[in-house]
Amino acid sequence: MTSAATPRAYRRLSVEDRRAQLIDTALQLFAHRAPEDVSLDDVAEAAGVSRPLVYRYFPGGKQQLYEAALRGAADVLEQCFAEPEEGPLMQRLSRALDRYLAFVVGHDAGFSALLQGGSVVETSRTSAIVDEVRRAAAEQILRHLGVTDPGPRLRMAVRMWITAVEAASLIWLDEGKDPSVEELRDWLVENLVVQLVTAAGRDEQIAEIVGYVLSLEEPGGVIPRLAQRILPLVEAASELG
Amino acid sequence: MTSAATPRAYRRLSVEDRRAQLIDTALQLFAHRAPEDVSLDDVAEAAGVSRPLVYRYFPGGKQQLYEAALRGAADVLEQCFAEPEEGPLMQRLSRALDRYLAFVVGHDAGFSALLQGGSVVETSRTSAIVDEVRRAAAEQILRHLGVTDPGPRLRMAVRMWITAVEAASLIWLDEGKDPSVEELRDWLVENLVVQLVTAAGRDEQIAEIVGYVLSLEEPGGVIPRLAQRILPLVEAASELG
Repeated sequence: MTSAATPRAYRRLSVEDRRAQLIDTALQLFAHRAPEDVSLDDVAEAAGVSRPLVYRYFPGGKQQLYEAALRGAADVLEQCFAEPEEGPLMQRLSRALDRYLAFVVGHDAGFSALLQGGSVVETSRTSAIVDEVRRAAAEQILRHLGVTDPGPRLRMAVRMWITAVEAASLIWLDEGKDPSVEELRDWLVENLVVQLVTAAGRDEQIAEIVGYVLSLEEPGGVIPRLAQRILPLVEAASELG
Repeated sequence: MTSAATPRAYRRLSVEDRRAQLIDTALQLFAHRAPEDVSLDDVAEAAGVSRPLVYRYFPGGKQQLYEAALRGAADVLEQCFAEPEEGPLMQRLSRALDRYLAFVVGHDAGFSALLQGGSVVETSRTSAIVDEVRRAAAEQILRHLGVTDPGPRLRMAVRMWITAVEAASLIWLDEGKDPSVEELRDWLVENLVVQLVTAAGRDEQIAEIVGYVLSLEEPGGVIPRLAQRILPLVEAASELG
């Protein structure tokens, strides 16, 4: 977009806007290439600015730019999770997942690179940013479930599900986005439901949550449809003895 | 063990045995400390040998020793997955998980460090070793399920489950090994069952596999007990509409 600008046009942006533009440019480049393959030259060229200017904003070089981009991605992801506390819980979760998966699709290779280990630019600081996003997701889920003091099984179930979502996103990109994004979303929502239902028999708090989730469901919702679909299998399995 | 040996005792081991001993010593040290906090000096001291001797075996230094230790851990893990193809499938899976979780418990902090990103000694080679273990686990599961040509949903379900097991192990260590290892194992087995049952309605191949899994189950097995436990909830949910 700005790469077609004249050499002097970039002087007009404020410091904050310029910084945001460079981070945004870096994120776009990371969408197609791993962070270690993106140079400050590439960012300067894509943003239509000089290399010294990029260095003025990110004197720490590539590593600083990468961390700023990751920070920016984390902020966007955390906004994805925000959802009003009303209506069936699984509809809220579906909407949050739609936003999250749109981010995944929009950033593709960059998303994989940001989340996956093995990046040469990965440090304890970048790991901390990724962990912060996971924690924010867990907090949102617990808030919607009305839980302030999660027990070990609930904490584990929620953390496991968040990791499963991350892993599923990476695997799904790796598998060429097959099945469709809508099916993936429904699968992930159902995954949380069945995981909680499975754990409900072993944990009083999770049993209460399952009751709460069911109480907010509407006819034709995710959970009734899922339950109707699996009921024959569950009945057959329970009759095995 | 060998740290009590006399200075000259170590000369008696063969090259292969010495190498194996040093790798084993490193793995034991990694069980309590992150790889980046273990020096060759530490390995020499713990093995009761001189530092030059450790360097003779691992001229590449710490990085080479770390990779050799990871390679050793990968071999042990891959052996954990081997299981005769007979009896109820979920019993086979439980036995493999018992061995895997015993490894996790035995290596604790080292296991986290080996698997988690952010290690300073992580490289594309070490990531490849970790990926190889995941692939080996997936192949074993598909082999037991009698599948030679998995479709995208089955591939994804199996890969997601393997990642969930890994994540659960790390979270479980992080949460101070609460709940018990037996409960964690059962939870993980049930997690695969419900994930396949959930996906069965969308995929013919997975539906056939669920049928095959059920046909091998015995009264009182993991699946009938799980089904009986969740049946009331599934019935209630399906009646919501």
